[in-house]
Amino acid sequence: MGVSIKDVAKKAGVSVSTVSRVLNNGKYVTDETSEKVMKAVKLLGYRPNIIARGLRTKKTNSVGLIVPDITNEFFAKLAKTIEENLNNNNYSLLLCNSGENEDKERKYIKTLLDKFVDGIIFISSGYDQNMHLFPDDLPIIAIDRKPNAKRVNFISSENKKGGYLATKHLIENGCSKILMLKDRKAVSPMNARLEGYRDALREYNMLFDEDMIIESEVELEYVKEKILKIHKRLEFDGIFAGTDLLAIGAIKTLLKLGYKIPKDIQVIGFDNVLTSQYYNPGLTTIAQRLSEIGERSASLMVDLIENGVKNTESKSYFLPVELIKRDTTR
Amino acid sequence: MGVSIKDVAKKAGVSVSTVSRVLNNGKYVTDETSEKVMKAVKLLGYRPNIIARGLRTKKTNSVGLIVPDITNEFFAKLAKTIEENLNNNNYSLLLCNSGENEDKERKYIKTLLDKFVDGIIFISSGYDQNMHLFPDDLPIIAIDRKPNAKRVNFISSENKKGGYLATKHLIENGCSKILMLKDRKAVSPMNARLEGYRDALREYNMLFDEDMIIESEVELEYVKEKILKIHKRLEFDGIFAGTDLLAIGAIKTLLKLGYKIPKDIQVIGFDNVLTSQYYNPGLTTIAQRLSEIGERSASLMVDLIENGVKNTESKSYFLPVELIKRDTTR
Repeated sequence: MGVSIKDVAKKAGVSVSTVSRVLNNGKYVTDETSEKVMKAVKLLGYRPNIIARGLRTKKTNSVGLIVPDITNEFFAKLAKTIEENLNNNNYSLLLCNSGENEDKERKYIKTLLDKFVDGIIFISSGYDQNMHLFPDDLPIIAIDRKPNAKRVNFISSENKKGGYLATKHLIENGCSKILMLKDRKAVSPMNARLEGYRDALREYNMLFDEDMIIESEVELEYVKEKILKIHKRLEFDGIFAGTDLLAIGAIKTLLKLGYKIPKDIQVIGFDNVLTSQYYNPGLTTIAQRLSEIGERSASLMVDLIENGVKNTESKSYFLPVELIKRDTTR
Repeated sequence: MGVSIKDVAKKAGVSVSTVSRVLNNGKYVTDETSEKVMKAVKLLGYRPNIIARGLRTKKTNSVGLIVPDITNEFFAKLAKTIEENLNNNNYSLLLCNSGENEDKERKYIKTLLDKFVDGIIFISSGYDQNMHLFPDDLPIIAIDRKPNAKRVNFISSENKKGGYLATKHLIENGCSKILMLKDRKAVSPMNARLEGYRDALREYNMLFDEDMIIESEVELEYVKEKILKIHKRLEFDGIFAGTDLLAIGAIKTLLKLGYKIPKDIQVIGFDNVLTSQYYNPGLTTIAQRLSEIGERSASLMVDLIENGVKNTESKSYFLPVELIKRDTTR
């Protein structure tokens, strides 16, 4: 970091502006001069000042990513793929954890704008008013959760179809009283999964019963409490859980109560997190194509930045989902 | 982003240099002028150009974090706490996934240096030659895995003590033939846990047997294969697994083989990941103080950056571990 463009010029025996010309476009420079300069650059380990370059090109080659919680495997997998793909295109990733908190989300958006990121990819915490902080000319992509307030590019999964496939699977395996265990947060993918659940019931002429929709925080203790209450009050032989962690919390509690799974009660989750594979019994679930969502987000972002596609021409993509059969359904 | 310092000067009816003075130090400016300028700043939504400021102060207020894999809950939790604590001190986090790959790690270090981060926190992939890329005057903190090649600040857990506590717990609960299931990667915390295992055996006058040390990739299929081979060849009534995922992979396989846990075989893990709590049966494990490691890394980094503590005065911190008793040991 101590090496300056002057040192390079001196070493190569040329002027500073010649070095600059070689490094920036190579115009009006002979091959011989260019070679001399590049040799000096390598020898001295010179790195062109990217901050200064940022001032000229108005690009920082960094992209902000706002996620609710990086310790959630679902978001971590997205972050990993996005980071890898951006990095392959020479963009760095600024990571922000909003913690589903409106004020934090707002603060992060402002910080990212202050740092002049070239674009922002975000998983909304559902606070649509924060959307107005995004400048119109900044490339923005929302993933997983659809913001209502503003038109943005949106990439997600076929959540409704996933809910439908899960419920249909339970029905076809003999379930007639199916709970839906839902995340308490009314985010768009969870609502879409509920719609899919209703669609499947309708198709099989089964009654939709509001009482069978159970809302819970996605935490073991909450789920346990819910299930302990419900199993006394309601009869059910199947559970469609809106996330794998909800499913696993329910299974753990039901096993302790003496139920056999899948004999007495069948359970299906959503997301196909690593734990659903490691769990005992292995969890039947709906898998999203997380790598593909991440790849597509990154490549769309690079496209928006480099080819100046406008947010007003925003698009939505919904990637296919798939049922993974394991041991919690018959 | 379209608002410039010129617009602010015009609006406030003062010169550009007056605006600059108000924003940068407030010297030689009357309260009245200062108020006029700040009113214009707010009205126009002007943001001082942080890139340009970076050129002057040589600070970018960003810190790089290199982790092997952000989808590993252990690293994700560290990343989350580090990011939160840095953010509270107005630093942003550039996230890099090395994938335990030497070339990628090297590329990331170079990128972070190119971006003029104020410091780098990293979990080494074990390639000590990459350490030489770090400039001497850049604040560096290694977490979890101790690099050999160079003196750096190092923050980790009492891994040796953890291995000792885990093994002692198995011995005191009646185990006499204890396997250690170890990550194949020879990273420093895993070796320290093995040392702790040996210490406990020695204390109880039990023989250390090389054959009882089993190495595996931390992946379900690998662990399964290892256990299937071993259970035919070796007798054992306890397993100390170097990570929770190794433990869970072993349990899943042993249950399928018809063993009862903890009746026939007792198992203890390491890390206390979320899955160890959700798992069925709940996994006894050694917990690390991840939040504290993250907090301390962030605050030390801020200290190194802002108070110029040198790497040559590098320090090591080892945070306490704790045994969490659940259902896989008696």
